[in-house]
Formats: sequence, C-alpha cells, structure tokens
Amino acid sequence: MKSSPSSFVISNVRLPDGSPVAVSIADGRIADLGPNVVPQPGASAENGGGALLLPGFVEGHTHIDKSNWGREWYPNEVGPTLMDRINNERNWRKTSGHDAATQSLALSRAFLQAGTTRLRTHVDIDTEAGLRHLEGVLGTRQTLRDVLDMQIVAFPQSGMLKRPGTVELLGSALAEGADVLGALDPALIDGDPVASLDATFELAERHRKPIDIHLHEPGEVGAFTLKLLLDRVAALGMQGQLVVSHAFCLGALPERERDALLERIANLRVALLTSAPPSRTVPPLRTCRDKGVTIFGGNDGIRDTWSPYGVPDMLERAMLIGMRFDMRRDDELAIAFDCVSDAAARGCGFRDYGLRVGARADLVLVDAQTVAHAVVARPVRKLVVANGKIVARNGALLQAA
Amino acid sequence: MKSSPSSFVISNVRLPDGSPVAVSIADGRIADLGPNVVPQPGASAENGGGALLLPGFVEGHTHIDKSNWGREWYPNEVGPTLMDRINNERNWRKTSGHDAATQSLALSRAFLQAGTTRLRTHVDIDTEAGLRHLEGVLGTRQTLRDVLDMQIVAFPQSGMLKRPGTVELLGSALAEGADVLGALDPALIDGDPVASLDATFELAERHRKPIDIHLHEPGEVGAFTLKLLLDRVAALGMQGQLVVSHAFCLGALPERERDALLERIANLRVALLTSAPPSRTVPPLRTCRDKGVTIFGGNDGIRDTWSPYGVPDMLERAMLIGMRFDMRRDDELAIAFDCVSDAAARGCGFRDYGLRVGARADLVLVDAQTVAHAVVARPVRKLVVANGKIVARNGALLQAA
Repeated sequence: MKSSPSSFVISNVRLPDGSPVAVSIADGRIADLGPNVVPQPGASAENGGGALLLPGFVEGHTHIDKSNWGREWYPNEVGPTLMDRINNERNWRKTSGHDAATQSLALSRAFLQAGTTRLRTHVDIDTEAGLRHLEGVLGTRQTLRDVLDMQIVAFPQSGMLKRPGTVELLGSALAEGADVLGALDPALIDGDPVASLDATFELAERHRKPIDIHLHEPGEVGAFTLKLLLDRVAALGMQGQLVVSHAFCLGALPERERDALLERIANLRVALLTSAPPSRTVPPLRTCRDKGVTIFGGNDGIRDTWSPYGVPDMLERAMLIGMRFDMRRDDELAIAFDCVSDAAARGCGFRDYGLRVGARADLVLVDAQTVAHAVVARPVRKLVVANGKIVARNGALLQAA
Repeated sequence: MKSSPSSFVISNVRLPDGSPVAVSIADGRIADLGPNVVPQPGASAENGGGALLLPGFVEGHTHIDKSNWGREWYPNEVGPTLMDRINNERNWRKTSGHDAATQSLALSRAFLQAGTTRLRTHVDIDTEAGLRHLEGVLGTRQTLRDVLDMQIVAFPQSGMLKRPGTVELLGSALAEGADVLGALDPALIDGDPVASLDATFELAERHRKPIDIHLHEPGEVGAFTLKLLLDRVAALGMQGQLVVSHAFCLGALPERERDALLERIANLRVALLTSAPPSRTVPPLRTCRDKGVTIFGGNDGIRDTWSPYGVPDMLERAMLIGMRFDMRRDDELAIAFDCVSDAAARGCGFRDYGLRVGARADLVLVDAQTVAHAVVARPVRKLVVANGKIVARNGALLQAA
C-alpha cells in the first residue's frame, strides 16, 4: 500500500450526528477527530467534499471460501433440503475447478472496495477437502494483512461426529491459524446434540478458542440445543466466547420461553448473528437489544452453490436487516447500521474499532445526508480507508489493495 | 425522442433461453426476432455485444405522486400505526413544498432509466389535496407519453366513506383520466366494509373502470373483506377487473380456508399484487401460481414519508421477491422475474407486451449470463428501448426521454 501516505487529514466531512469535522490519520490510527484538527507535520490532505463519515464496515458472518463471486454464473438446480445443499456443494467442489484461494481473494477485495475492513468468515473443513479451504483463505488473509482484519472460523460444513476424522481436522485448523471453532446443528445434522456439543466445547477449551455455531434448528429443537449451549458456557466459564449464528428458533418460541432464553444469553454474554432472512423466523432484534443481547449482522454465503443472493456490501445487508424488522424511522435505520458496524465489532471481538481517537483508522466516506440515507441508497464509496491506508476511491479499488 | 431512429436492428443478443438472436424494431414494434433477422430498408444497427435481451420491466404497484426521490432526505420520525402514517403524510404535504408533478416526473424517469416501460401508479385523492396529485401525474404521463405506458389508479389514501366528499372526488378523477378505481381497507380504515365496497363497486360500474384495492387487513378480517370482494366481482360480472394489492391475509389463514379462497380468486380472474415485504405475511406465491392465480410484483412506495426503502429498479424488486419466497434455483428466479414482467403485464392489463413479433418494442439489455444472474446482480442497463425508442444507454437516460 505504498500509494497511501502514512499520515493525512480528511477535511470537510460530517459525523453521523451531522456535525462537521476533520479526521487526522497517522500510523494506521485515528490521531484526531473533531472540528479543529491540527494535521501532523508533513501530513497530506484529502478534501472529503462534505461527505458523511462512517466507520469501516464489519462483516459478521460470511463464507469467502466457497463463493462464485466474479466467476461464470452457477446455475442452481439443487434440491430443497439442507442435506441436498451440503451434498451438492461437496460434489461441485470436486468437479468445478473452484479454488478457495482465488475466490476468497476476489471476494475479500470486493468487500474492501465497498468499505468492509473487518470480516469474520467461516471456512469449510471436512474429510474430503481437508484443510484446503483453510489454506486458501489463510493465503488471502496474508495477502491483505495490511488492510483487512480477518477472523477465520473452522467450520464443519458436512457435519462433525457423523464424519469421523472431522474433529481432528478441526483441531489441526485451529493449530494452523483458524481463530474460532465452528459448529453446525448438533441435533439435526450431527444427530446427537450432547455428544456433538461436548466434542465442540472440549476442542475449544483445549485450543483456548471461542466458538461460533450455525444453529439452523427451528423452534423447540433449536431451543433445546440452545439450552445445551448455554449450560456449557456457564459450566466452563466461557462467558463472552460464544456466537450463535442464525438462531432461527428464537423467532418461533412462545414469548415467555424466548425471553427467559434471551436473559440467559445476555447474562452469559453470548452474542447472536443474523442475516435477517425474509423467509425464516429470526431472533427479535429490538427485544434482543432491549434485553442487553449483542445481535449483529452478516451476509452469510454470497453467490455460492447454496444461494445465488448476496453482495459484499454491508450497507445493503443493513438495508435488508432494516426491511426484515420493518425499521422505517431514521433512529431504527441507525440500529440496522449498528448491526454491521459497532455491534458486529463487539460480537466478533474486533478490537480498536470505531470513529474515535486511538481506534484503527477504518473509515468510509459516502455522499449521503444521514446514516439512514446511506443505508437505503447504498451510494458509491467515495473513499475507503483501511488500517490508515486509502484502499478505494469512487467505488474503485486502488491497485495496491 | 428524435435521437432514436424509427427502425433499427439490435444484433448479437441472447434470449432468456440462451439462444443467440437479433431483434428488428420498426414503428415502435418488434418487427422480427430470431437467429436470421432481415433489417428493414434503411434501418440502423446496434450491436448488443452478447448481452441478455429482456422485455421492458413492469412496475405493478407504486406511488409516484408522493415520492421524495431525488430530493433532500426526509427524516422519518413517524409513529407505528397505519393512521399515524396517513396523518403524518397529509400534514407533511401541506408544509414540505412537495409537488406531485415534479416528483412523479423525476421518479418516472428513474424507472425508465432502469428499464421499466410500463407502470401502474396509485395517486392520492382526498378532500384536502383534491385532484392536485392526479393533475401532477397526468402531466408526467403526458410528458412521457411516447415512451412510458402508465396506468393511474385514483386512490383514497385517507379513507373514503370516513371523509365525506371523497367518493365524488374519485368520480371526478376517473372522469379526468384515471384508469382504475382504487380502494383501501374497507373494514379497518373505512369502518364499514359492506357500505365501503358497495360504494366502490357502484362507482367502478358507473365509470366502467376496473378496481385495484389496497387490502392490508390481516388474517380473518382480511379474509372476510376478501370474500365480500369476490362476491361482488361474481354478482356484477367483473371477472378480470379486480386486483387485490398486498392481501397480507392470504399468508395467515389455515391452508384449507386459504386454498378455497385462491380457487375462487382464480375462477373470477382476480389478480394479486405483492411487494413481498419481509416483515408481513404474504400470499403464498407458488401456491397462487399452481392454482392459476395471476400474482405479480411492485415496489409500493419508494422513498416517501411511509417508508425510506425502495428504488425504481424492477430487477431489485424481483430479487426481493425471490428472497422473500426463498427462491434459490434458476427456475425459481425466473418466476421472480416473471412477477415484474409477463405476470405484471397480464395482471395490470398492459397490452402488446413481451419478447415476440408484433409486441410493443420495450426491451432491456444487460450483461448477465441468465435471467437469474440478472435478478441477483442487477447490472447496469446497457440499453433500454421503450415503445421502439432508445431511452437509456449504459445506465444513463438519454436527454430526449
């Protein structure tokens, strides 16, 4: 990233509250932010042109290893069940020439271009692919290490207990650089929720890693699994070390049962992730927040064999979250944006985040009057700064990124 | 539209089924379409560059009179009920300097630019605004008459029976150029479903106009109103003359009751419109189609005081419809596209529509491999032809439109 000066000032921008400010960036950090910023000696200048200043976006849950982004269109003729999709994808991987390194790099660059500077990706680990996807994504993380802050979840997409050898592979993935242990539907995929979760927590403890579980299990069976999860967090002292992704069950329980679960979730500092799918039940976002639960947003898969939908633009994801929860007021749309910025950084444990002095300089400029306007209009990114480096201008990634 | 030749050939394009064709346009019509097109004498040539050829899009339900499109951002601080939104909007109209003529023209042009060549808009008629919105929209229709095929629905947004004088205004609107009679929640807004629907059908009969009703009424009350509607269609012989917009109730009834209603709806050739909102129950799209019901798509309001969401891009609306109904396969996404093309033309009664010889030449070219790809990627429109005239190129409206 030699094209970007190490110290510069962006003048003539507005904070989300409307106040006009400038921001001074030095050594990858926000050195100053306010109406009267004094540039560092030798700093160069950027005129923000009155743009809205936002923090770099946070993708809380995606799958960059398996995307078809930028490739030939994948004609989807897959059957309707979860296992149809899992088996279809495993077969497709063998025959398509798909390469996790190439694809994850293409999609990560598209994320950066659209203002995402922190990203949590789940990466398939199974007995057929072994650690190949992990190696590809580790290569992408290394390539973009100066600009994109990436967390990797070792994810047993094909099931864990049901495919012997997977636990050992997950252990190897954690040893080789995965940051988080993934898991998947211990009842409906693995078939034995207690044994599956015991194995998951044992592995996480051994490697001292947090857990992020895909919990698609609906209604009462999902609630049953969720209770098993919370019991283990409490027993092992893993407060703040679990993300439950999707948690569709929380959208389909009687209010009393749901609220009791949400209170335990808040007390154990377990976080929830939603992509806000319009065709599934979803955790009640406002109630979650009211109860003190961190709930944040992510795209889930982007244009892969599971689903053709998704773009690497967290403003669009914020819009979809807002629509899913019927958020129409500006103060509600600010919550939708929080799901792909502060709440996501908190839920994933990304450090030094935010529009404040001392934070990592991850910034996005857009021509929008307010945050709500930015979310619904999804304007071209005028400028993207990642870790203090200018990586994109007017919607185009700079060559160096 | 003097910039566009009256006769031209677009070569090197692909039909939705993948077959390479050219299309010859003369006097506003598709004169020829196929692999071996003979140009009209003196026709000029356009090279489609291998693009996908789609029919012009159809917006089945929007409100171009009340949009804030292209204006200053409207900060939404509105309360949560339907009446909050209705009253807020009426107050805002008085104070905002909003002008239905200017706004409807700006939004209609944005629709054209993104490939929409046929559009049904509801226009507010009430005892405060009188016919002012209608006059504005009639002006826009006149301005764009050579390119945009517009249907105007006279819509009692503030209620009908509950605001004396509204019935007479609706009659005047129909006399002055509105094509369709609108209506709104006869039980929950008007408070008297039988009297309200009797007045609506009497007015429609007198003016020999079809009806398009906003039916937000949920569950069993919506089903009650729907039965009253169907009874009147049958009694008055108004088969094929009613659109029920939204019809949230059809997403929340026991299957047996719902299916009996859908069978009557199909037999009476009543059509359904959905914007596929992710936070409401919606008519079951596939079941509707299986039962022979025409169900089509529309944006509803775009960036107005009701809702900040929406863009005048029917590919994005098709994507949202696809997401709402969990359509992931390519053949399912083709159905989502049908909702904003053929099905919408059929539901609204737009004539001479489609990719066939003799139809009005309404065409869109996009760089996409398939229809499904176009829906999820929403690429820039390479070329838009409306009524045989080139109105937009590479995402930009030509000056003449």
